[in-house]
Amino acid sequence: MKRHLFTPGPTPVPPQVLAALAEPIVHHRSPDYRPIFRNCLDRLTAVFRTAREPLMFTASGTGAMESAVANIARPGDRVVVVSAGNFGQRWVQIAQAFECDVDVIDYEWGEMPAAEDLAARLRELGGAKAVLVTHSETSTGVVADVRALAAAAAEAGAFSVVDAISSLGAVPLETDEWGIDVVVAGSQKALMTPPGLAFAATSHATDGGRARGYYFDWARNRKAQEKLDAAFTPAVSLVVALDVALGLLLEDGLEAAFDRHVRLGRACREGAKAMGLELFSPDDDSSAVVTAVKMPDGVEAGEVVLSLRDRFGITLAGGQGPIKGKIVRIGHIGWFDVFDIATALAGLELALSEAGAEIERGVAVSRALETYEHTAV
Amino acid sequence: MKRHLFTPGPTPVPPQVLAALAEPIVHHRSPDYRPIFRNCLDRLTAVFRTAREPLMFTASGTGAMESAVANIARPGDRVVVVSAGNFGQRWVQIAQAFECDVDVIDYEWGEMPAAEDLAARLRELGGAKAVLVTHSETSTGVVADVRALAAAAAEAGAFSVVDAISSLGAVPLETDEWGIDVVVAGSQKALMTPPGLAFAATSHATDGGRARGYYFDWARNRKAQEKLDAAFTPAVSLVVALDVALGLLLEDGLEAAFDRHVRLGRACREGAKAMGLELFSPDDDSSAVVTAVKMPDGVEAGEVVLSLRDRFGITLAGGQGPIKGKIVRIGHIGWFDVFDIATALAGLELALSEAGAEIERGVAVSRALETYEHTAV
Repeated sequence: MKRHLFTPGPTPVPPQVLAALAEPIVHHRSPDYRPIFRNCLDRLTAVFRTAREPLMFTASGTGAMESAVANIARPGDRVVVVSAGNFGQRWVQIAQAFECDVDVIDYEWGEMPAAEDLAARLRELGGAKAVLVTHSETSTGVVADVRALAAAAAEAGAFSVVDAISSLGAVPLETDEWGIDVVVAGSQKALMTPPGLAFAATSHATDGGRARGYYFDWARNRKAQEKLDAAFTPAVSLVVALDVALGLLLEDGLEAAFDRHVRLGRACREGAKAMGLELFSPDDDSSAVVTAVKMPDGVEAGEVVLSLRDRFGITLAGGQGPIKGKIVRIGHIGWFDVFDIATALAGLELALSEAGAEIERGVAVSRALETYEHTAV
Repeated sequence: MKRHLFTPGPTPVPPQVLAALAEPIVHHRSPDYRPIFRNCLDRLTAVFRTAREPLMFTASGTGAMESAVANIARPGDRVVVVSAGNFGQRWVQIAQAFECDVDVIDYEWGEMPAAEDLAARLRELGGAKAVLVTHSETSTGVVADVRALAAAAAEAGAFSVVDAISSLGAVPLETDEWGIDVVVAGSQKALMTPPGLAFAATSHATDGGRARGYYFDWARNRKAQEKLDAAFTPAVSLVVALDVALGLLLEDGLEAAFDRHVRLGRACREGAKAMGLELFSPDDDSSAVVTAVKMPDGVEAGEVVLSLRDRFGITLAGGQGPIKGKIVRIGHIGWFDVFDIATALAGLELALSEAGAEIERGVAVSRALETYEHTAV
């Protein structure tokens, strides 16, 4: 059966990138590799919109998240986490594992964090070392205003640390211009590469701490990377693939990618609404990464996900945590066009109809296509 | 130019494995992935010769090394490192980064560690929590007797932790039978897969500690893996490839791989000696992973490596640390046959001859082929 991957990560990888993965292995200290690595780092620097080369790790995105806490915070340091979903909770768990004094601004899943809340909490607490926030909360589809959150952190003298794992390359993120201290990301979302590489853009101000741990020690990794080397054998195949993927992304330009994601989000929302479904993720252009759709009464999301997969080869994600069973999530991150949205909606329509849900038939796909076509960003 | 990769990691990857890398991305919680992951874990369990499923991490091998220290040792715990090269030193650095009380049995690079030395040191010190050893010291070609070293650790009540990154699947290693508590390895050596996956086989006795850090927390990772899940998005492409590679390895059988590596080592040593070169790595069957060859007087190893690469497309490794410039290393790990050894020796012969070294011409290749063919293990 033909497969359609619409999960919010890992995401589909273009065939050119898959082909690069199959290239013969090169040694990471050889001239067969170094120019590719150089190129890749330059392209990453452009994608992060920063002047300072981001660090690359062989790890999941969580590894880069850990690196931020391990390099910035000492035991007992006050750290504020802005959490409104599963990945906010991951920040909490990491900061706790590193024995920080963790204060959580805990929103309901699906709520949009407010910079005023953060500013107030930071004033109240005093002395926070860092603020850990999630840009795109993949579990809910909410994209937070990290520019405002970072400004609130800076105002209070705290480092701002942004998990941009599912947002980088999909929605605007200006590391330097917005004054964000640390941005972490991964290869497997809008960067259109398989999972296995993680990145951390770090400001000079965050350097000089003594890392806890070894593998994610920024100083050790930067020292090697400055010599176009890696502290530890890198996942060379993934780096070669990432270089191709970033080339595709930058050839069209980041702005084109941002525009496309906004319009894909619009198309997905309008299509879902035309079917008669309610949205869980916000019904506005901030919601450009993942569209979360509530299931009609009496329909269990997990069964819809199963039926889509088994009957039509379509993989969507269900809900996590408190919204498990209640929503399905359509990721439109990276290598997506409007016909993927059409496929996701058409599949969802079929599955819901078979599940006996009372939905409007025959309108979602055309509404999505029209919305994509006839709205400018 | 056709490329020949003879470095001791990353190593060449069979075309079937490369082809698997190029397969479309599957979601790690989907039925497209879980059976592959199951298979892969079963095969890893067989390769580690243990009853307990090893943990899989998306990381370089060093990540799995870190996991051992982070999960076993608390700050101030006494840890003894048996070091005779670059990767022994890595254990020292990791244990220091984790604030252990590190005691090093420091051999000259190229020396073979002795279990009696370890036993004596452990008696003298008392109270060691763990012993960290290197099975195949890739920097020198020495393969240590980890069975005896682990026995010495057990005798002293210390956990034995073995870095088997370049040895697993190349030379015998009996995790359970030899009573080794922790064996760590990586995908990119004898397992014939690109770098990016790391493994840790852990004994029940080592569980229950409180991990430092989050990403490499054994309990967190095992809990997910027991549900055939991953705590963090895994490098799915590499797992799919690893499954193919382990299938190739186990189809022929581990014993066949061990035999082949012994004979490849013999062939490489006899060929090098026939050329008139001196060996740096031991001239016996223990040396089945990497053959380290001393350069003739007046010949700088780095220049030989460069000339081999630029003129013939052959990548060998030079020396590291105190033996930099003095040796070249021919890796014969994983997907190698005797004709690869012949190519490496033929290239080396040409390069040395061009560098003006007085070597015997025209004998190395045939000696290597004969040795491989006419000696049984």
